[in-house]
Amino acid sequence: MTASRMTADDRLDIFDLFARYAWAYDCSDAQAYAETFAPDGVLSDAFQMRVEGRAAIEKAIHKFFEMRGTSLWQHHNDHLRIEGNSEECTVWSYWAVLEHRKVDDYHGVGRLGYYFSRCVKRDGQWFFKERTFYVDMEEGLPWKNPALQRQSA
Amino acid sequence: MTASRMTADDRLDIFDLFARYAWAYDCSDAQAYAETFAPDGVLSDAFQMRVEGRAAIEKAIHKFFEMRGTSLWQHHNDHLRIEGNSEECTVWSYWAVLEHRKVDDYHGVGRLGYYFSRCVKRDGQWFFKERTFYVDMEEGLPWKNPALQRQSA
Amino acid sequence: MTASRMTADDRLDIFDLFARYAWAYDCSDAQAYAETFAPDGVLSDAFQMRVEGRAAIEKAIHKFFEMRGTSLWQHHNDHLRIEGNSEECTVWSYWAVLEHRKVDDYHGVGRLGYYFSRCVKRDGQWFFKERTFYVDMEEGLPWKNPALQRQSA
Repeated sequence: MTASRMTADDRLDIFDLFARYAWAYDCSDAQAYAETFAPDGVLSDAFQMRVEGRAAIEKAIHKFFEMRGTSLWQHHNDHLRIEGNSEECTVWSYWAVLEHRKVDDYHGVGRLGYYFSRCVKRDGQWFFKERTFYVDMEEGLPWKNPALQRQSA
Repeated sequence: MTASRMTADDRLDIFDLFARYAWAYDCSDAQAYAETFAPDGVLSDAFQMRVEGRAAIEKAIHKFFEMRGTSLWQHHNDHLRIEGNSEECTVWSYWAVLEHRKVDDYHGVGRLGYYFSRCVKRDGQWFFKERTFYVDMEEGLPWKNPALQRQSA
Repeated sequence: MTASRMTADDRLDIFDLFARYAWAYDCSDAQAYAETFAPDGVLSDAFQMRVEGRAAIEKAIHKFFEMRGTSLWQHHNDHLRIEGNSEECTVWSYWAVLEHRKVDDYHGVGRLGYYFSRCVKRDGQWFFKERTFYVDMEEGLPWKNPALQRQSA
């Protein structure tokens, strides 16, 4: 299929993809989480983690659920910078984790960071082809950082 | 009127409805708050509360304003999962309350939860036909939960 | 150019403008920050500050970077109320600063407030013509407040 301009519906579908991702994570649905990725999708972080394919991603997210323990986490993804066409796009976005730590009933901000995502449309639906998360923000816009561009290319 | 596909403008109008709701709540405008509901709209929670019609909703939200006292609340509604057509839709969404507690100048996270909303278009504008709020998030996606589906049907 | 109805793409481009603004601020890119403004754009607050033109805005934002020090700030802009046409619009929006204070590794909510923005389209891209920030929220919707309307007219 020939790629054309990204429509307003495409851009809103990307918002919806990010919403599905957050809900699946925060409600502990590992399968729904993995299904936001393309079958050959990759989940990775800024360090050693690199997990490929839905079965492996489902296993990996379970470890994060365990790390979270009895706390409730809400991911707030924000400020999506979307660039691409009707078939694939890249997205830089913020993430913030708000938490309700049930062990002492504390509500607060967990951690902050940002994502780099490559998204692809398959049979009319958008998926993550690659999703990499970074903790904290750095000096300088990440999309102007040659090191990050190389990493994500 | 025959329902058709939801347009990008419809979806953005739903975002705007959620924005009007948050502003009215956080700036204590009970009338503007009630006017985000259809005249026969219903505000409810996961327990006993069920308030129908704008006059009753206006009264009910006043009680929340009193509960808030001198604190400032900011509702952040996020991750809207919109499904429906050009005339009505359902929306699952996050809410987080950030607060500035003026009594001791503390800034923090108040509470976290989610909404289930039924929205309807009347004379070209979207309103809440029903808005139910839940505190905290549960294990499992709420739209896969038969108990919640029954409740909201 | 004759103004027409704001399209869904225009509205999404405003979201993107807000995203570019937040990223530039939080990643300390003063030039990218200034470039979210029109060449004759104005940055102001509710008090004495009023800075006009990109060179002056770039200088001004550096002072905020210094104020922030070693902390990481994430601006979360939310609940955009957009009104206008294909050439210019006004936007009322929330801002919340979430922070990672590196000096003691505290994560929390910094401050809360709202923005009033006038946006203009130049050569197909949206910019801030004017951006005014307010700390905290007041009783009453700001767009119904004659004092604020005068100020921003």
